[in-house]
Amino acid sequence: MKNTLTPALSYHRKHRGKLRITPIGRLNDRQKLALAYTPGVAEPCLAIHQHPELAYDYTLKGRIVAIVTDGSAVLGLGNIGPEAALPVMEGKAALLYEFAKIEAFPLCLSTQDPQEIIETIIRLSPTFAAIMLEDISAPNCVLIERKLQELCDIPVFHDDQHGTAIVVSAAVKNACRYLKKDLSKIKIVVSGTGAAGSNVCRMLSLLGAKHLYAYHKEGVISFDNCANADFVVKELLMQNIVQSPASSVSTLTDLLEGADLFIGLSAPNLVTEAMVKRMAKDPILFALANPTPEIMPESAKKAGAAIIGTGRSDYPNQINNVLVFPGLMKGVLASKAKAVTLKMKLSAVEALSGLVKDSELSADYLLPDIFDSRVVDAIANAVMKAA
Amino acid sequence: MKNTLTPALSYHRKHRGKLRITPIGRLNDRQKLALAYTPGVAEPCLAIHQHPELAYDYTLKGRIVAIVTDGSAVLGLGNIGPEAALPVMEGKAALLYEFAKIEAFPLCLSTQDPQEIIETIIRLSPTFAAIMLEDISAPNCVLIERKLQELCDIPVFHDDQHGTAIVVSAAVKNACRYLKKDLSKIKIVVSGTGAAGSNVCRMLSLLGAKHLYAYHKEGVISFDNCANADFVVKELLMQNIVQSPASSVSTLTDLLEGADLFIGLSAPNLVTEAMVKRMAKDPILFALANPTPEIMPESAKKAGAAIIGTGRSDYPNQINNVLVFPGLMKGVLASKAKAVTLKMKLSAVEALSGLVKDSELSADYLLPDIFDSRVVDAIANAVMKAA
Repeated sequence: MKNTLTPALSYHRKHRGKLRITPIGRLNDRQKLALAYTPGVAEPCLAIHQHPELAYDYTLKGRIVAIVTDGSAVLGLGNIGPEAALPVMEGKAALLYEFAKIEAFPLCLSTQDPQEIIETIIRLSPTFAAIMLEDISAPNCVLIERKLQELCDIPVFHDDQHGTAIVVSAAVKNACRYLKKDLSKIKIVVSGTGAAGSNVCRMLSLLGAKHLYAYHKEGVISFDNCANADFVVKELLMQNIVQSPASSVSTLTDLLEGADLFIGLSAPNLVTEAMVKRMAKDPILFALANPTPEIMPESAKKAGAAIIGTGRSDYPNQINNVLVFPGLMKGVLASKAKAVTLKMKLSAVEALSGLVKDSELSADYLLPDIFDSRVVDAIANAVMKAA
Repeated sequence: MKNTLTPALSYHRKHRGKLRITPIGRLNDRQKLALAYTPGVAEPCLAIHQHPELAYDYTLKGRIVAIVTDGSAVLGLGNIGPEAALPVMEGKAALLYEFAKIEAFPLCLSTQDPQEIIETIIRLSPTFAAIMLEDISAPNCVLIERKLQELCDIPVFHDDQHGTAIVVSAAVKNACRYLKKDLSKIKIVVSGTGAAGSNVCRMLSLLGAKHLYAYHKEGVISFDNCANADFVVKELLMQNIVQSPASSVSTLTDLLEGADLFIGLSAPNLVTEAMVKRMAKDPILFALANPTPEIMPESAKKAGAAIIGTGRSDYPNQINNVLVFPGLMKGVLASKAKAVTLKMKLSAVEALSGLVKDSELSADYLLPDIFDSRVVDAIANAVMKAA
């Protein structure tokens, strides 16, 4: 059995997962027991009972982030359930530590009911400094995150929504800067209106985008074609974030006609070379479906794309959340903020895009590398300033 | 401010609590990222999705115990709430690691509703190997633990109930062995009918005790005096575990008349020298209220006690749960048991009491010291055999 395991399976089996919980000090004599446990432990207990904020000083509360999922939309694997989601959540916790020295613990819930997820997280909140939601399917994830923002007294951040929106927005800003395109004037098509796509639309709109169109698996988003869409999609139209195209526009091919920027957060191979050729001059393609993008970089280039970005590490311009969430959580924890605000998110876009100078910008270098050591603190400082 | 802190407060503040979560390996290059995160992580995810039990091999699930409380009955401090309970839960986790190398994470819930606690723990169960309940007030804790035993597919153990029952039972067995008293014949008085007291009664009854009487803050437990008692107390009477004394017996003094064994899990200074003098010959007093026992050892000795035990480390015969829960959880995890069974608990009593040989037993040496390195494995092996 053992020697048939792939490298990735062996890696996970070797230590039975990727995280370890250890005491900071030994408790191997009566004196240490008396400090760390009875009778000494009663002192921090009583101090916190009188002043609850002292939990941040005397316990792990101020240091630990809960990474919570229901296993309903894990990576590109879909609804694989809570146990099967654990490797991803442990991985996310390990990334948070690797990049920002933030400790996190995964909690994979055996319910996919939004109300139950909300109340469970509220009940868990006393132990944690912040909550990171992960891999919860849309539109539930939007509902859950909004409700928690309202009800939870610790910061809540859904990386798939806002981490993605921040990193994509920073890449869009820099692509426009490089190509001297004006965000408020270009035509943008977003494919995918789930957690990521809908928030990319929202954030680009906040940054000034005015000609935004969206597409999802039921077709082009328009007032004529949204009767059965979920509330997230309807809001995009109603709030004038996404424009409703003329009724003659009924396919992605139609929608891409004359577009300056395509952002794919959807499915493999939706975009063809022919479609790219009908886009505006110097088109930008961010084809972020993983592992197979909406169009492969080679094809996009051949069809005339000026800039291409993917979610993959084996092509230039990897547009990856890991550029955002470690620094963002570091800033949130350091500032003891009670919530992750819009101002923090916009500051993070600014900080991330600003790390690449005009003189460094190129078609193959829009954003810093994920191992660029400046990234975390640039974002953390921006978030702290915004807090 | 800082220099006014007591040693215990300084200890807790130094590292902000007592536990640390760290990745087992670094993720500092693309190759490691590809194994631990995308794309490699998809492999254990899919394997677990197909065979859920593989979560025990590929994730932390099989290694981590959740220590869950609602903060309603923390140490002797009472209902101090979830944040203030954190230092105790972190301490418990640190003890589990120190004594048995078992990793645990504290979860302090912001609800004290039994139904909500039950459903929250069930929703959390996919991430954990087992649940340890802690410091939840009686009778709710009994209800919660029973319901979870029924509904939860991972082992659930409430230390205050069963850890205490096991260690007290082992001490009682050895005290009887030393004094050549017959457990089935002696008169036993248990003061306190909460989580600990009620389960001490149950376990002693299972071990053969037939003349058990109980007392709590509303007075002597009897059929005449139980109308307002909680269901835990009523069950003790109805199930013939605790005897109902004659109606003339109305005080603890009356109840202790002729008793061989007093077990206090209640409140300071309930027992006087005069009361001890009216007990049977060679009385045994386990005065376990913390930090101030039901009677101080000096007084008990003066009044003729043959054996005295307390919960304190500064007197002989410390009767402390820490002798039990590390080994028990080690055995439960190693055996991948689905529940903590009665057979396991009785085996733990046997294993713990059996560590002290006849030739070693004395009035001052009933149980091994908490730092005796044989204890954990003796109990773990007994539990594994029983599993």
